[in-house]
Amino acid sequence: MPAEMQSGFGASGEDRGARVTMSHGGGGALSREIVRDLLLPAYGSGFALPLSDSAVIALGRGKAAFTTDCFVVKPLFFRGGDIGRLSVSGTVNDLAVAGARPIALSVGMVIEEGLEIAVLGRIAESIGRTASEVPVAVVAGDTKVVERGAADGIFITTSGIGAIVPGGAFGASRIRPGDAVIVTGTLGDHGIAVMSERAGLRFETPAVSDAAPLWGLVEKLISAGGVHAMRDPTRGGAAAALNELAQDAGVGIEIDEESVPIRPEVGAACDMLGLDPLSVANEGKVLAFVSGRSAHRALEAAKEHALGRNAAIIGSAVSGHPGVVAVRTRVGGRKVLEMPYGEGLPRIC
Amino acid sequence: MPAEMQSGFGASGEDRGARVTMSHGGGGALSREIVRDLLLPAYGSGFALPLSDSAVIALGRGKAAFTTDCFVVKPLFFRGGDIGRLSVSGTVNDLAVAGARPIALSVGMVIEEGLEIAVLGRIAESIGRTASEVPVAVVAGDTKVVERGAADGIFITTSGIGAIVPGGAFGASRIRPGDAVIVTGTLGDHGIAVMSERAGLRFETPAVSDAAPLWGLVEKLISAGGVHAMRDPTRGGAAAALNELAQDAGVGIEIDEESVPIRPEVGAACDMLGLDPLSVANEGKVLAFVSGRSAHRALEAAKEHALGRNAAIIGSAVSGHPGVVAVRTRVGGRKVLEMPYGEGLPRIC
Repeated sequence: MPAEMQSGFGASGEDRGARVTMSHGGGGALSREIVRDLLLPAYGSGFALPLSDSAVIALGRGKAAFTTDCFVVKPLFFRGGDIGRLSVSGTVNDLAVAGARPIALSVGMVIEEGLEIAVLGRIAESIGRTASEVPVAVVAGDTKVVERGAADGIFITTSGIGAIVPGGAFGASRIRPGDAVIVTGTLGDHGIAVMSERAGLRFETPAVSDAAPLWGLVEKLISAGGVHAMRDPTRGGAAAALNELAQDAGVGIEIDEESVPIRPEVGAACDMLGLDPLSVANEGKVLAFVSGRSAHRALEAAKEHALGRNAAIIGSAVSGHPGVVAVRTRVGGRKVLEMPYGEGLPRIC
Repeated sequence: MPAEMQSGFGASGEDRGARVTMSHGGGGALSREIVRDLLLPAYGSGFALPLSDSAVIALGRGKAAFTTDCFVVKPLFFRGGDIGRLSVSGTVNDLAVAGARPIALSVGMVIEEGLEIAVLGRIAESIGRTASEVPVAVVAGDTKVVERGAADGIFITTSGIGAIVPGGAFGASRIRPGDAVIVTGTLGDHGIAVMSERAGLRFETPAVSDAAPLWGLVEKLISAGGVHAMRDPTRGGAAAALNELAQDAGVGIEIDEESVPIRPEVGAACDMLGLDPLSVANEGKVLAFVSGRSAHRALEAAKEHALGRNAAIIGSAVSGHPGVVAVRTRVGGRKVLEMPYGEGLPRIC
């Protein structure tokens, strides 16, 4: 471990050295650092760079996308979804934003002894139902059981293979100043829904997770043309996704806060909890960078899909301030949208 | 959940219904039942049948194998390996026995808060080193952190994609009476090594795990010709693998106990612990069913490889007693080698 990494890894004065903290799993700067500085050098050069959520591999004459995600959400069931729906949606969406039609999923489960069989059955059915919405086949799986207290209910790791469609292989490197930033719907729904459930918060209109597989919507966006890059803003929310893209693309990004679609109940909950909806996790939204002249056609294409009705253009890529995301606030000010550092909302996915 | 499953799923008189037990994760009959009766019906028809460890999917003009495995071994480090080496070996070996050259791996980690960064680093390096032995690239990953007490150190789920080689797509359906059963080396090493470590047992010659990626060895076997089916006897050992193959192929299997290679220290430990080495997990062995006339050529090919030096022909497929594995014991008797039911050695992989 290189010395300059020590601080980021939370080194302390303890004899036994630095330890993993919740913040290393938050999807923000610390997560990125552990991958870049510890895992990548250990795994060797094959690992996908930039640090997007899927890798492109050559298979015969075609190109496939390959991705994996672990799900540790707490509680297992929440308004709008459950760990099963989440685990299929997350992996399908990673493939979709890589421009890949999902072909096959695998599902690995680590189960805590004592989990009710009926609960496992509900989760498995949710996995099957969500996969059928895409549709994509669950073709492989593994199941391990650990003693009571050695896990928390169930953890699920899904992996997926997708076939990259013609014109696919989108990525940060294709982003150009002048590109419009489209979001396919309201932000923050998933994070607030899970958080409310966990904290036992009661709102008049409760937040509902947006967990959904987005291949159908993404296919419409791609068909409209002009798409340069897509990202699903999960852990760390739009703030993490936009900062990663700005850094990887070497462009600046300007976001117009007023144009960002936020449900009133999510906005109210964020105000109460002191959260920025731009930093809250989504599980059924895509951020797309689209060439300026294709932007309105792409927006209309998104709006035609049931999961994209609230789509909006929320900003653009600019040549100024490369690597930095700036927000024009509702009151007319400007602020930098920071990369979330550690763990805002633990175990949100 | 169909009523006839209740008993198998360990239903009790409790109000809240049946619960998952350690035995559901043991790789034996109960593991098979939870997959067949609960998960498969929920996931839909895409799931690979028979219940082998990998699925074959069409990708462009080629065929690929896709597999996933969860690793929860305790302790994380043991003689001959660690959870990182295990997680690469297990997935590579599932691909190899499907006749697939490993192309890409993904690594998903669920980490307990407080794990030493140095320990994570050692595991990651072991992953990279083991992958480079194949060689196969680790191309994608995900990392989640859960609170202290919500996991046990680290759980790793690896998935793999492989390209099925010409003449590959081996499987139980190709097994014919008269096929020889080849094992590529000594049985029981991994299970006894982990068990000894965990129980703090001291032997004069300690058992060493065989955890190793076997693509190179399998490639030699395939080149020798005549291979009909292969399986890596992990959880549940050779007993589980042979019973599954006998059932799926609809043939009987005869094993000659005396010809099964067992290290003396493993045999002694099994005697002491009351275990049958045929039911103990391996992580670096292949069972191959090879046409009778190719058997000796295949055996020689295996022996030429460093990981196959102790290979032996240990029995054959027969037309009698379909679905049943019979053992000729050292003292000249005969017994049925049962499918392990539940959990012999928990958290062995």
